Amino acid sequence: MTLIASPVVPTRGRLRPLALGEVTITGGFWAERQHVNGTATLAHIEHWLEREGWIGNFDLAAAGELPDGRRGREFSDSEVYKYLEAVAWEIGRTGDPALEDRFRKVAARVAAAQEPDGYLNTKFGRPGQGERWSALEWGHELYCIGHLLQAAVARARTRPDADDGLVEVARRAADLVCVVFGPGGIESVCGHAEIEPALVEFARVTGDERYLDQAALFVERRGRGTLRDIEFGRSYYQDDVPVRDATVLRGHAVRAGYLAAGAVDVAVERGDEELLAALVTQWHNTVARRTYLTGGVGSHHQDEAFGDDWVLPPDRAYSETCASVASIMFSWRLLLARGSAHYADLIERNLVNVVATSSSAEGTAFFYANTLHQRTPGTPAAAGELSPRASSSVRAPWFEVSCCPPNVARTLASLAAYVATVDDDGLQLHQYAPAAIRTTLPSGMAIALDVETGYPRDGVIRVRVREDAAAPWTLSLRVPAWAEGARLVVDGSEEAVTPGTALVRRAFRAGDVVELHLPVTPRFTAADPRIDAVRGCLAVERGPEVLCLESVDLVAASAGRVDDISGVRLDPAVAPRDVDGAVVVRLRRSPAHSRPWPYGGPDAEPAGAGETFDVPLVPYHDWAERGPSTMRVWLPA
Amino acid sequence: MTLIASPVVPTRGRLRPLALGEVTITGGFWAERQHVNGTATLAHIEHWLEREGWIGNFDLAAAGELPDGRRGREFSDSEVYKYLEAVAWEIGRTGDPALEDRFRKVAARVAAAQEPDGYLNTKFGRPGQGERWSALEWGHELYCIGHLLQAAVARARTRPDADDGLVEVARRAADLVCVVFGPGGIESVCGHAEIEPALVEFARVTGDERYLDQAALFVERRGRGTLRDIEFGRSYYQDDVPVRDATVLRGHAVRAGYLAAGAVDVAVERGDEELLAALVTQWHNTVARRTYLTGGVGSHHQDEAFGDDWVLPPDRAYSETCASVASIMFSWRLLLARGSAHYADLIERNLVNVVATSSSAEGTAFFYANTLHQRTPGTPAAAGELSPRASSSVRAPWFEVSCCPPNVARTLASLAAYVATVDDDGLQLHQYAPAAIRTTLPSGMAIALDVETGYPRDGVIRVRVREDAAAPWTLSLRVPAWAEGARLVVDGSEEAVTPGTALVRRAFRAGDVVELHLPVTPRFTAADPRIDAVRGCLAVERGPEVLCLESVDLVAASAGRVDDISGVRLDPAVAPRDVDGAVVVRLRRSPAHSRPWPYGGPDAEPAGAGETFDVPLVPYHDWAERGPSTMRVWLPA
Repeated sequence: MTLIASPVVPTRGRLRPLALGEVTITGGFWAERQHVNGTATLAHIEHWLEREGWIGNFDLAAAGELPDGRRGREFSDSEVYKYLEAVAWEIGRTGDPALEDRFRKVAARVAAAQEPDGYLNTKFGRPGQGERWSALEWGHELYCIGHLLQAAVARARTRPDADDGLVEVARRAADLVCVVFGPGGIESVCGHAEIEPALVEFARVTGDERYLDQAALFVERRGRGTLRDIEFGRSYYQDDVPVRDATVLRGHAVRAGYLAAGAVDVAVERGDEELLAALVTQWHNTVARRTYLTGGVGSHHQDEAFGDDWVLPPDRAYSETCASVASIMFSWRLLLARGSAHYADLIERNLVNVVATSSSAEGTAFFYANTLHQRTPGTPAAAGELSPRASSSVRAPWFEVSCCPPNVARTLASLAAYVATVDDDGLQLHQYAPAAIRTTLPSGMAIALDVETGYPRDGVIRVRVREDAAAPWTLSLRVPAWAEGARLVVDGSEEAVTPGTALVRRAFRAGDVVELHLPVTPRFTAADPRIDAVRGCLAVERGPEVLCLESVDLVAASAGRVDDISGVRLDPAVAPRDVDGAVVVRLRRSPAHSRPWPYGGPDAEPAGAGETFDVPLVPYHDWAERGPSTMRVWLPA
Repeated sequence: MTLIASPVVPTRGRLRPLALGEVTITGGFWAERQHVNGTATLAHIEHWLEREGWIGNFDLAAAGELPDGRRGREFSDSEVYKYLEAVAWEIGRTGDPALEDRFRKVAARVAAAQEPDGYLNTKFGRPGQGERWSALEWGHELYCIGHLLQAAVARARTRPDADDGLVEVARRAADLVCVVFGPGGIESVCGHAEIEPALVEFARVTGDERYLDQAALFVERRGRGTLRDIEFGRSYYQDDVPVRDATVLRGHAVRAGYLAAGAVDVAVERGDEELLAALVTQWHNTVARRTYLTGGVGSHHQDEAFGDDWVLPPDRAYSETCASVASIMFSWRLLLARGSAHYADLIERNLVNVVATSSSAEGTAFFYANTLHQRTPGTPAAAGELSPRASSSVRAPWFEVSCCPPNVARTLASLAAYVATVDDDGLQLHQYAPAAIRTTLPSGMAIALDVETGYPRDGVIRVRVREDAAAPWTLSLRVPAWAEGARLVVDGSEEAVTPGTALVRRAFRAGDVVELHLPVTPRFTAADPRIDAVRGCLAVERGPEVLCLESVDLVAASAGRVDDISGVRLDPAVAPRDVDGAVVVRLRRSPAHSRPWPYGGPDAEPAGAGETFDVPLVPYHDWAERGPSTMRVWLPA
């Protein structure tokens, strides 16, 4: 079998992924973030994994010293695995020998902790610890093994000849899982899905169908109440309704996304159209009723969970970074299976407005939750201090539960994989960034393209063909759903294209240029009236970017006279406009009465007509880069 | 010293409480609830305390069998104490000999578990358990002792000659607390405030100042970071800012309210005007910015906590029943200290719209959280099953954390205490219910009044004097803040009165009648525009009652054509009107587009003009009595 260096490589489906070596992001918005990720974030993560003892736990295990001295939560092993996965993709991307050295050293420490029968977990199974598999609801043992498998998948696909043995470590752990949880074994599932997509991908890498069978078993078992009922209900871990009967994602948002991704994998490999159709329905209903404007999901802080339909409060948006990573995983698998552009639309929304938001510009501090309305400036974590809190107005270097930083890192390191795909007939561009693409179609025809663009700030995407084609093929370009009025320019002739995909079919010649012009003029966006929490508000978007009002800009624009973002209203009669690259809106000062009781007759509302200011908005992914501030995406109109 | 049978008996302050024996609620809204509480709820609670083993834990402790077999959470002892407190007040109210027997039996089982040095807790201190006082953040040891003291206070004040020994049990526990946490002892506080008001009240009962000193120490220590930082921050247990420096309540709402109540007690007994002023400020800011229309508090499910200013989402309102009990405790103490009617206003709002909402009509099922917008009908707990969940659309008979039912029970049993007070010059009526009041002023003058009213449904409160007065005295009647247009009728002459207090001073004669006419016509209520979550909505109130739209009424009024409460809008041009005792509003059907992505251009909002229905609303305290339903208090206009 061939090893395509990409996170998801189905054996069938509508589209075929390209390898990291076939797509290089050469500049712009994402190249900068990939560079920061590789040069700053990965080292930052390893520093904290060492500092907090989460890698050290493996050393203690190897030395037989556990449970004494073990540090971190029950799932801390998984952060080490996600770090290894990120490093493996980064090695695949850049070939950095220093990273290769780091990878081998950490992988060796992990390997040394594995028990003879393949079991690998620093939290369970030893005298003084909980028994193996005794805490499926909260123990995260299978979840951790899932991330180990994903790290091994990344390693196997980027360095197939490596002799570090991580793939063998993963194989022994996966084999044990198949024995313990296979037919006749423990008839249950992990409280946190992740083993499901991991086993399928490991089957794809190894060609061993047992892993796929086990993943299918886990997917089928879920939703049948084998896990204990808990305060949040079994929906928390999706153990309330069988996957093929569910109509919408619910419960813990990361768990829900990982499970859905794994279920798509199973459906695709098994040709299970019924299951796949159920997942498509779940995707659509979740997007239509349970998703924030940013693409983020999860309205509950309490259980990091989806709320009911239409419960999307901006000020209590949880929108965990990892939930967007999970959403991207789910959407990407459906995109490969079905090919529809709306999956890539949602991926873009999450990449631009959540993944890119989570990391600071320096790549060494992160948002775990991504609120859409910050009411108090908050205080930064003391320099170098771990934050116990998932939500804050200030990015933190590390968290007690630190799933998000390595999840962002592995996503950014493998980002090129999400740019384009191929099918028998041609190549599909899904995400727009300056890029060099060199691949061959299944027919054997070589394709070479360069993409030139200032996207997302600029709306022109120029695709320059670098190789003569022996026969016609189809170049497919995604036209985002927001891009009403988009135009396609081929050989100087221009045509209007509608949201979905724009196709150009021909025997391309080297030097051919195809241009897609997307209208990235800023625009007002309203919400479905059933989203009660933003009734009477408008947001401003520009291309795929969600914008926001940050207090620092309000203070400056009002010459210090207004510092309270709840003391202004948007003038909806003045369209947002681009002024020297910044999007400016007109706000009206609207001082509220200070009343002892904040409820009263309808006529008690203040008149509201006050002085106006033209205030620049900033892209949401850039907020909170200028110190603690208040912020809102949805502006009262 | 005299023992006034009332929960709070300060030695100084503006107003003096009356004893349960001096005020009898004789009929109407609250008498019915007191009756259900005494005849059904108390037995229901004891049944569940036995069934769940929470009383049995004391038996195990006495038999030396703990920790094996202990059941319930770390604070389960406190539910037994709150039950005892409720029973003690009920005995004081009715003299029921069967309850007296129940009280003695349970009190004896509690007493048998006390250790020789006074320590009393079934969760800590034995081999195999956590050490005493080793878990101040979450252990609730002092919290439990606080509730033990409150039970003893109720017992001492209602049956001062009882020989069951509960007061002595409490005294030994309180003495131990003073030794362990007094000067030179452990310099910290309990993660859940409650010991503070309890110690002050115990000092008031016993006359022993040591308990007051200890309470003052606890109040002063709070806010200085002696407890560990946690995910929610130290504000969770108010250990972030010293009480006298704080400007608003924050963190866990029940903890915040109990602490504030105890701090008022300390301030009053110590004559500490600076501390009292700080608490008055906290009360005002909390009421003005962090309180739901119902009077409920707590916007976060995650940490059962206050949110930032203006964060009051109706659909994620936590508004824990116990937080309203705590709010009543805080307000009542400020009312006694300061005398201002707005404290009684907030008490009424909480009593009518939260306390009365929590219990089912039968008194055997309860809301723990009190949402203002229920989006899904939900499913009832299986009959007789404990609910692991605090929030649901259906009242549950019992919870894993079951603080609310006994808190409601003790409040209802002692409710008469909140109806009226006296001062040197006369009597103040704070809450309106049919009642008989027989007391003497500090001067020795006897006062006898009967209150006749159909309040809150009817706005006429008739006070009939039953005793000739030897000298003039002042009858003070609260005019609620919403009661614009109220009128006072004395001897057939009528005058307009404004919100606050209406005073009638004279040498009353038996047979004199004073009537207060409060305008209880239904009215629209709007919210401060900074409460983003209800922008563009109106609520409907009638007198002190908040009303709501329940789906069952929408279905009936639309002849089954509309069952989705998010598919209608209020017609604000048609005032709510009283039709045969029901409040009816006009709703307009407003079907929303079903779009794949719920955000788009502002013109994409549906036109909304559809057929109209006149639909009756129900008092919020009556909702969810007709099976699972959806509901909303705030109606889009």
